Amino acid sequence: MKRIDTDVSPRYAQIPTFMRLPHVPSPQGYDAVVIGAPYDGGTSYRPGARFGPRAIRGESGLIHGMGIDRGPGTFDLISCADAGDIDLTPFNMHIAMETAERRLSGLLDGNGAFLMLGGDHSLTLAALRAVAHRHGPVAVLHLDAHSDTNPAFYGGEYHHGTPFRHAIEEKLVDPRRMVQIGIRGHNPRPDSLDYARGHGVRIITSDEFAEAGPAGTARLARECIGDAPVYVSVDIDVVDPAFAPGTGTPAPGGPSSREVLSLLRHVGDLKPVGFDVMEVSPLYDHGGITSVLATEIGAELLHQYALSTVRERESA
Amino acid sequence: MKRIDTDVSPRYAQIPTFMRLPHVPSPQGYDAVVIGAPYDGGTSYRPGARFGPRAIRGESGLIHGMGIDRGPGTFDLISCADAGDIDLTPFNMHIAMETAERRLSGLLDGNGAFLMLGGDHSLTLAALRAVAHRHGPVAVLHLDAHSDTNPAFYGGEYHHGTPFRHAIEEKLVDPRRMVQIGIRGHNPRPDSLDYARGHGVRIITSDEFAEAGPAGTARLARECIGDAPVYVSVDIDVVDPAFAPGTGTPAPGGPSSREVLSLLRHVGDLKPVGFDVMEVSPLYDHGGITSVLATEIGAELLHQYALSTVRERESA
Amino acid sequence: MKRIDTDVSPRYAQIPTFMRLPHVPSPQGYDAVVIGAPYDGGTSYRPGARFGPRAIRGESGLIHGMGIDRGPGTFDLISCADAGDIDLTPFNMHIAMETAERRLSGLLDGNGAFLMLGGDHSLTLAALRAVAHRHGPVAVLHLDAHSDTNPAFYGGEYHHGTPFRHAIEEKLVDPRRMVQIGIRGHNPRPDSLDYARGHGVRIITSDEFAEAGPAGTARLARECIGDAPVYVSVDIDVVDPAFAPGTGTPAPGGPSSREVLSLLRHVGDLKPVGFDVMEVSPLYDHGGITSVLATEIGAELLHQYALSTVRERESA
Amino acid sequence: MKRIDTDVSPRYAQIPTFMRLPHVPSPQGYDAVVIGAPYDGGTSYRPGARFGPRAIRGESGLIHGMGIDRGPGTFDLISCADAGDIDLTPFNMHIAMETAERRLSGLLDGNGAFLMLGGDHSLTLAALRAVAHRHGPVAVLHLDAHSDTNPAFYGGEYHHGTPFRHAIEEKLVDPRRMVQIGIRGHNPRPDSLDYARGHGVRIITSDEFAEAGPAGTARLARECIGDAPVYVSVDIDVVDPAFAPGTGTPAPGGPSSREVLSLLRHVGDLKPVGFDVMEVSPLYDHGGITSVLATEIGAELLHQYALSTVRERESA
Amino acid sequence: MKRIDTDVSPRYAQIPTFMRLPHVPSPQGYDAVVIGAPYDGGTSYRPGARFGPRAIRGESGLIHGMGIDRGPGTFDLISCADAGDIDLTPFNMHIAMETAERRLSGLLDGNGAFLMLGGDHSLTLAALRAVAHRHGPVAVLHLDAHSDTNPAFYGGEYHHGTPFRHAIEEKLVDPRRMVQIGIRGHNPRPDSLDYARGHGVRIITSDEFAEAGPAGTARLARECIGDAPVYVSVDIDVVDPAFAPGTGTPAPGGPSSREVLSLLRHVGDLKPVGFDVMEVSPLYDHGGITSVLATEIGAELLHQYALSTVRERESA
Amino acid sequence: MKRIDTDVSPRYAQIPTFMRLPHVPSPQGYDAVVIGAPYDGGTSYRPGARFGPRAIRGESGLIHGMGIDRGPGTFDLISCADAGDIDLTPFNMHIAMETAERRLSGLLDGNGAFLMLGGDHSLTLAALRAVAHRHGPVAVLHLDAHSDTNPAFYGGEYHHGTPFRHAIEEKLVDPRRMVQIGIRGHNPRPDSLDYARGHGVRIITSDEFAEAGPAGTARLARECIGDAPVYVSVDIDVVDPAFAPGTGTPAPGGPSSREVLSLLRHVGDLKPVGFDVMEVSPLYDHGGITSVLATEIGAELLHQYALSTVRERESA
Repeated sequence: MKRIDTDVSPRYAQIPTFMRLPHVPSPQGYDAVVIGAPYDGGTSYRPGARFGPRAIRGESGLIHGMGIDRGPGTFDLISCADAGDIDLTPFNMHIAMETAERRLSGLLDGNGAFLMLGGDHSLTLAALRAVAHRHGPVAVLHLDAHSDTNPAFYGGEYHHGTPFRHAIEEKLVDPRRMVQIGIRGHNPRPDSLDYARGHGVRIITSDEFAEAGPAGTARLARECIGDAPVYVSVDIDVVDPAFAPGTGTPAPGGPSSREVLSLLRHVGDLKPVGFDVMEVSPLYDHGGITSVLATEIGAELLHQYALSTVRERESA
Repeated sequence: MKRIDTDVSPRYAQIPTFMRLPHVPSPQGYDAVVIGAPYDGGTSYRPGARFGPRAIRGESGLIHGMGIDRGPGTFDLISCADAGDIDLTPFNMHIAMETAERRLSGLLDGNGAFLMLGGDHSLTLAALRAVAHRHGPVAVLHLDAHSDTNPAFYGGEYHHGTPFRHAIEEKLVDPRRMVQIGIRGHNPRPDSLDYARGHGVRIITSDEFAEAGPAGTARLARECIGDAPVYVSVDIDVVDPAFAPGTGTPAPGGPSSREVLSLLRHVGDLKPVGFDVMEVSPLYDHGGITSVLATEIGAELLHQYALSTVRERESA
Repeated sequence: MKRIDTDVSPRYAQIPTFMRLPHVPSPQGYDAVVIGAPYDGGTSYRPGARFGPRAIRGESGLIHGMGIDRGPGTFDLISCADAGDIDLTPFNMHIAMETAERRLSGLLDGNGAFLMLGGDHSLTLAALRAVAHRHGPVAVLHLDAHSDTNPAFYGGEYHHGTPFRHAIEEKLVDPRRMVQIGIRGHNPRPDSLDYARGHGVRIITSDEFAEAGPAGTARLARECIGDAPVYVSVDIDVVDPAFAPGTGTPAPGGPSSREVLSLLRHVGDLKPVGFDVMEVSPLYDHGGITSVLATEIGAELLHQYALSTVRERESA
Repeated sequence: MKRIDTDVSPRYAQIPTFMRLPHVPSPQGYDAVVIGAPYDGGTSYRPGARFGPRAIRGESGLIHGMGIDRGPGTFDLISCADAGDIDLTPFNMHIAMETAERRLSGLLDGNGAFLMLGGDHSLTLAALRAVAHRHGPVAVLHLDAHSDTNPAFYGGEYHHGTPFRHAIEEKLVDPRRMVQIGIRGHNPRPDSLDYARGHGVRIITSDEFAEAGPAGTARLARECIGDAPVYVSVDIDVVDPAFAPGTGTPAPGGPSSREVLSLLRHVGDLKPVGFDVMEVSPLYDHGGITSVLATEIGAELLHQYALSTVRERESA
Repeated sequence: MKRIDTDVSPRYAQIPTFMRLPHVPSPQGYDAVVIGAPYDGGTSYRPGARFGPRAIRGESGLIHGMGIDRGPGTFDLISCADAGDIDLTPFNMHIAMETAERRLSGLLDGNGAFLMLGGDHSLTLAALRAVAHRHGPVAVLHLDAHSDTNPAFYGGEYHHGTPFRHAIEEKLVDPRRMVQIGIRGHNPRPDSLDYARGHGVRIITSDEFAEAGPAGTARLARECIGDAPVYVSVDIDVVDPAFAPGTGTPAPGGPSSREVLSLLRHVGDLKPVGFDVMEVSPLYDHGGITSVLATEIGAELLHQYALSTVRERESA
Repeated sequence: MKRIDTDVSPRYAQIPTFMRLPHVPSPQGYDAVVIGAPYDGGTSYRPGARFGPRAIRGESGLIHGMGIDRGPGTFDLISCADAGDIDLTPFNMHIAMETAERRLSGLLDGNGAFLMLGGDHSLTLAALRAVAHRHGPVAVLHLDAHSDTNPAFYGGEYHHGTPFRHAIEEKLVDPRRMVQIGIRGHNPRPDSLDYARGHGVRIITSDEFAEAGPAGTARLARECIGDAPVYVSVDIDVVDPAFAPGTGTPAPGGPSSREVLSLLRHVGDLKPVGFDVMEVSPLYDHGGITSVLATEIGAELLHQYALSTVRERESA
């Protein structure tokens, strides 16, 4: 199966997969597999991320995977497929989390890496469980307005503000090789970042990111992460709400899309083993700009994975 | 405490309670109490009903509670307050259901009746538990596009398609005194209404409602319900989506607002003991028309309760 | 000057006048003149009617003025122009009312009749002053969800809930030849219709309109109005909010567009001398449906004026 | 391949096909095939119908294909698949029309019938060419606010106001067995319906439809069409804009969804050989109500086709 | 009374006050009081600011008042309450201005300072009257795209383009200690800034702000204002429309949210005595981003007031 | 004829022309003429630009044409008029292109220059044909996210991705004096910029623009263009979608409005002979921010033309 050819089929035609990749429900042997996680049962404020994967796919026909002056396109370098969605019950988080982990582990059994399209951030815990099962505790590059290392609240042990706390506690990640970029804003408690910092997580606030710039921040991240296998998690609310209104807990004062995309162009220098783009809630989007940005980020991550994969291959 | 006076305070001013009623977090001795149930964890399609109570209150300053040629206004006949919302965790349906039942039972301990503003329809089960605890198994007048007597699905024993099945099984209601009006559309299974009908529920489809008209349908409902204490549950999707786009599972081909409001004007002839208006999802609304309609329905229900209460008083 | 020809110029092209009529800022000798009244300083709830004329003009290229099986088109029967807008200060209602009256009187000095596009309903008082100055006290056909015969509130002697009370008090209208159709809903006071009825106004509620139907209601209106010169005022909120969400004080439970348009087809049997379509607030509209309906109503009123004018000419 | 099972996969999950049918790009041997026609190059006013098929599929997971008290579901009676979209260039109508005809003819070569999801109404000409090629000149049941029998304008021989004129001229249809229902509104020319009527087309205006009701109108249609193979074309603007704001040339004063759906329940009494639902422009929709209605109509048409097919089989 | 606890009550639950502060209609003895001013009668272009306070409160549950690495939270440092709204007639600006001044003066009689949530900018004149009555002529820190020192127009002596001209003329402010930041764009007259500059106002244009950066601009402001009591007025249109679309007179080319929030972090170094955040018109907002930003700004201002208050206390 | 005076007529009143200029359908002798090109038949993704000119005019009353500290206003320096729209058939691109070229050539015969408001970018080819007919091959300053030098696709020789390729091939422009600024994003082919670069076009990518800044980039542009007559074409998608969501092919990662407006302030140093602002699709806009920005850009271009014209006059 091949990607749909935009020279023949207009961008808005045909049933939309991510970047017009072939729809392969049970992929085997691909370098990277895209998978949707339509779920918002872990959302503390605005719901709607259950429609995130569908909205991202809908806009993704606009993006081609070939950057200016970068040589071959992503899909000339690596093989990719869209595996459709994980079937996640909206009624019971424990069942949903287990379903997600099982499906993602299954994908990793037969393919190189996955790019998960959220869905709320609680599912990143399922992703990290699957990734750690294969790679052991991983480094993390986490772009977000929020640290997501909160304790339980409202009777919810697991929700979209907790995945990285559980990941640290379950030893799925190496917190000393974990970088959180874009953190900002008023917080529920004065000590809300103490847990993360106490475990060695490197927090680069939104203001610090503005100060250091994308290149400088990439350098800091690289110093921390080094050659460890790294999971890259992008909460779309890392950018200012002007750039991504379609999200569950918007936080003013964030970076621009240009700054975040520029930062991500350095991911290929790392050794990434999994990716997600989370928290797109199209119910609050307009003109599809959040979904277009999420696609651009996902496309950039796939391209960086291609560059990293090629480098690994060549050095092998 | 008194209602806000619209001769002094514009309709859009001040912090909005339902119909500008006083905000009384722990009401005692009121004829009727309005209570919000901001929850959408039982929604199978479109979320957003967690913002329903807030949206309804926001538009409700427009409605005054005095009908043309009906004599005194609602609040000249009965005492009412807005008790705020039930604090419902979005992360765990079992905890949410118990919280709702406890709060609603508490309200019934000290007041006459409640009008619950949803929130998704799964919470009507909590309401019926509280009502049955006080009144024993009740009759039900249920306006909805869907029968909501489905079995579990997606691993969810309780969700917004099941409350009346559980209510029948838990003997909270008398199914032979239960009328469902407006049912329509394609269904998940050919036999999806068999459960309800098998227990004696009287189903008046949307087409039958159109045929019989509001007055004729009210007559049919009255024959079935008689003098039994009756719980009135209105799913806003009973009307056609043109009249209530802001809802979770819209069903084309329904009645108009005029037909439904006309039907509800007969509720005062019954002996109502509790009310709800559910499934308002403002994320899909526009121009607030769904919330304005929900207010109008809620206001009509309070007015009918006032008429029924006065009649009871007078006959006592 | 001629209307823009839709065979040459697409409906969305060129600077939009009402129904593509020629823009004539100071018209003389036309049978009917269309004039915008962009003002919402008299609005008690939702503003935005200041953008009403612009929105109506924007959609009006879709409407041609020729009905099925009705013979010649409106503009083959009478001469019409679009005079642009009245320049109404948003900051001071007294100045705005005087400005409107002066401009409308000026139009009546040199032309047959006007169709005013609102703008909020407070301006209908200015229109009635101008009309009464020329024709003496007139009959009124008033379609609205609200009677608009309220007393002052919030320190506002004049606002969009008062024009017909002032018109009665200023003897601009003959209240015994005044019909209000579509009145409904909860009201601010139990006696809010007493003033109108006490002066002889015939109120046909929304429910009565539904009962009698368009033809029956037209008959009742005609009995009341007879051969008197009649001013026709349509508040767009006369229809249910499903049909006209873009308005300032929506009232659920109203008639459909089909019913109202059908009623208006009888206006040509009367002797109309002036028209308005008020309370279009595009900020609350979607897909332009309120503006399209307002155009259709305005176009129907012009067509009825054409039929009435032709009949008068022929009988002269 | 099977339909996605809604007991396992939530309605909003997985890549959306029409009613969760299997996606079969080159179907063979199906009773009916659904096909999208994403095109709006023939639109005279509001574009956006190129996104119609995608929007309809997106909402169609909500609809199951089993009616109340109708016995077995559609897909228990006939075999169906979603063939994806026709790849239509937006830049050249002649190429687009030929592409559409070729693809639709191909579908008819190997399958029973198609349901085309538009896309603007100009493509119905391509559909009628394909259908006539197989069945000879067919009868037509056409629901629409507009007759679509206009001559060329703005230099466009073919556009969305002309398909039935060309179909008559090309003898693809038998105009004496052609019924147009819902026609209304102001028209571009007084004689705009003369062409259709002059060729024997039976026009039932919106007002006549209101008068006769769905059952009476179905009777009239049946008298005209008889046992001839009939193509059923539904322009979504047949309903009032309140029910379908998301369309290119909205026409106030139309029937409700309930009336139109009720009418369509009689299609199974005819001998239908092809179907379309056209002119859904999601850019003007809100809350997806137009797309949900289009799905409901498409689902009803498939169900009627199932009933007709079963009857044919049984009588064979 | 206490703030609502977000560990118990979800952010979207309960009747919304600003930042979940207690609702105290007649506050006494608080360090700071939040007060809504729902009014848009002074708006020259887009109305809707009458719904500003309600929209801001609605989103403000997301903001907690504790910054990263800033130590204790705002409400651990100072006592705050939400006093509800000022009841402002929409029909008469003179009455509205007097009502606002009276209410704000009353608040200052019994409490430390107020944060006014607008409403259009004309009300800042009422605020300055109240503030000057207590503190004498104050310094002003004014963030805005427009200087708001225009003369009267359209017969309106007072409107949202004039408050600072009146404030200078009424000697409520010391213009030589007045800084306007963010001024930009095309102006109605070439000399429109002459009045302000002629009185000694320091204007830092949007381009100059970009050049100097937040820290440099804060330094300039501090040099001008010194230790004088200062009123801080933020027109939300100071940021580019991308960050605050929901406003009455958007002006492209402005700073980002990050730049403005960064600048405001220096307010605590001054001696602020009053605050407002004006011109939020939710009718033009989307995804609530303007309201979320307005909350963030309001929360930052309260936090800066807390820092300043603590410093004053400590130095006392 | 004069501009509408905003001291008398509110910004939202009267039938809107661009910046309230007089509407002169057949202008003669003006320094600059504004002309709308309502067309989107060349759009490969999202349509709606046919409504661009109308939306831009609708918002343009807010912009006055006088910058801070710039001395006299635009319309004190040069004479301008709004010529209305070009009547472009949506059904046939060849006819549309010829119509546009003819009308634009006609304007240049009698006036100094034009500012075309799009409409999709395919029409810039018609503009360049008209301009080259008068001035010979011109230099080009092109701000856009896309190079628009693609070959044909989907059977479309001409579309909105091709105008500059055709312009180079038809020798309407001097590619060595052509600068494209803001180019970015993933492209359909790795070699998609080779054509442009191969002909000598200077491409300054979005990242290079960020690096060099507006002043540095202006310098680079000036070096390339020199004193040649230059056509300035601004595709609104040059800015990030946060600043201009209302466009057909949004591309994340672009510059801000402030950066682009700052760059355009240098256009007056060149010798501009024609202008366009293209690709505004209001169907995807919100709060009108894209149209307001397009106006601001158009106003800036007119002002720069005024400065350049005055300089030419003075040096003559």
